[in-house]
Amino acid sequence: MQGTTAQEPATPGTTPPPYPRTDRTIPTRSPQRASYDRDLVHAILDEAYVCHLGFVRDGAPVVLPTLFGRVGDRLYVHGSTGSRPLRMTGQAPEGLPVCVTVTHVDGLVLARSAFHHSINYRSVMIHGLAHDVTDPTEKREALDALVNHAIPGRAADSRPANKKELAATAVIRLDLTEVSAKARTGGVNDEPEDLTLPHWAGVIPVHRTYGTPLPDPDLAPGTELPAYLGEL
Amino acid sequence: MQGTTAQEPATPGTTPPPYPRTDRTIPTRSPQRASYDRDLVHAILDEAYVCHLGFVRDGAPVVLPTLFGRVGDRLYVHGSTGSRPLRMTGQAPEGLPVCVTVTHVDGLVLARSAFHHSINYRSVMIHGLAHDVTDPTEKREALDALVNHAIPGRAADSRPANKKELAATAVIRLDLTEVSAKARTGGVNDEPEDLTLPHWAGVIPVHRTYGTPLPDPDLAPGTELPAYLGEL
Repeated sequence: MQGTTAQEPATPGTTPPPYPRTDRTIPTRSPQRASYDRDLVHAILDEAYVCHLGFVRDGAPVVLPTLFGRVGDRLYVHGSTGSRPLRMTGQAPEGLPVCVTVTHVDGLVLARSAFHHSINYRSVMIHGLAHDVTDPTEKREALDALVNHAIPGRAADSRPANKKELAATAVIRLDLTEVSAKARTGGVNDEPEDLTLPHWAGVIPVHRTYGTPLPDPDLAPGTELPAYLGEL
Repeated sequence: MQGTTAQEPATPGTTPPPYPRTDRTIPTRSPQRASYDRDLVHAILDEAYVCHLGFVRDGAPVVLPTLFGRVGDRLYVHGSTGSRPLRMTGQAPEGLPVCVTVTHVDGLVLARSAFHHSINYRSVMIHGLAHDVTDPTEKREALDALVNHAIPGRAADSRPANKKELAATAVIRLDLTEVSAKARTGGVNDEPEDLTLPHWAGVIPVHRTYGTPLPDPDLAPGTELPAYLGEL
């Protein structure tokens, strides 16, 4: 599902510039695992269904799992107009400080030593200010991107939001400016003196798979499974 | 892998009391999806490899993906002693305000209307103060729980951390006191007037699966795949 949902400014033959490194995007630990590559960041984001949105409420952190969409270097989150972070964003004229993180678990790394157990993963962390989306055209595009993010091509094959639904939905935008990816790949890193230990060591790959689609019992007669679902 | 990793105070025939509702654990949206059931919370936590740990740094939120372990109503996170939230916890005598969230995506819900698209999910959110673990016995137990959380039974089948490794590892504890689970299950909730629309509607189940274990190339001759890996 990677890389299929967002409209990129397509300039053939050019490599997009990496995201700039900042104090907040250089990891304290394992900085060699960090990347600022724009295509890699976008691919990790696009493969995820849920992001974890962090914000501060009364001085304490809150981490909320939520759906999201992406249009180029803009990330969109939506929700009810009553939702706390969306309401807080609407009330913050300069934007609400947020951190959005997306993580994929790709494998379990079993070392001979407890200390060197790890996981293979890919993650993206975005720092910035979330802003309320008030422009009706941008709001529609963002909602389409949210639906297409989960199921590429789906927005065009569903009834668009009506006036009442649009009014009940708030959308916030986070620009991708302060962004990093981090990943661990590969095998086991045991100490040389542990290699002869009798414990099994290796990697267990972890995948995401899809079950057989479960049609709604009230489906209009003759409605067939759309082709785009076969590409998940 | 659910419910197999933590030591519960086993009192047969008694149901553990639910977590108390607090201002922070009653969701603003869809409170009917919330649960405070201790067994459900533990099961959702135990099925996850990664949690998203939120903390506040210089007034802004940070959301860090990290491994974790659970012993009863204590959640443990570990990392290098140089890791930022662990260092910050060590320097906060009253504890570091954190929010830990765990999320599973169980299905994509395709409605006829864009508005009613959703996902089936299960999540847990924990609010509280993280404390540095300084007691050597608790630290060892926590590190075992971290390894066993990912691979039940694995801690006993690996070389325990030595003095140098223990000194390089910091562990923090978050007590499960202010906790809620939230879940969406089931099918499509379209508006009655949309049921005759020609768009396919239904649920695409999403699962986690495991690939064939990839043994380390330096495995000692005759080392067999342990039985506990077959139970993943």
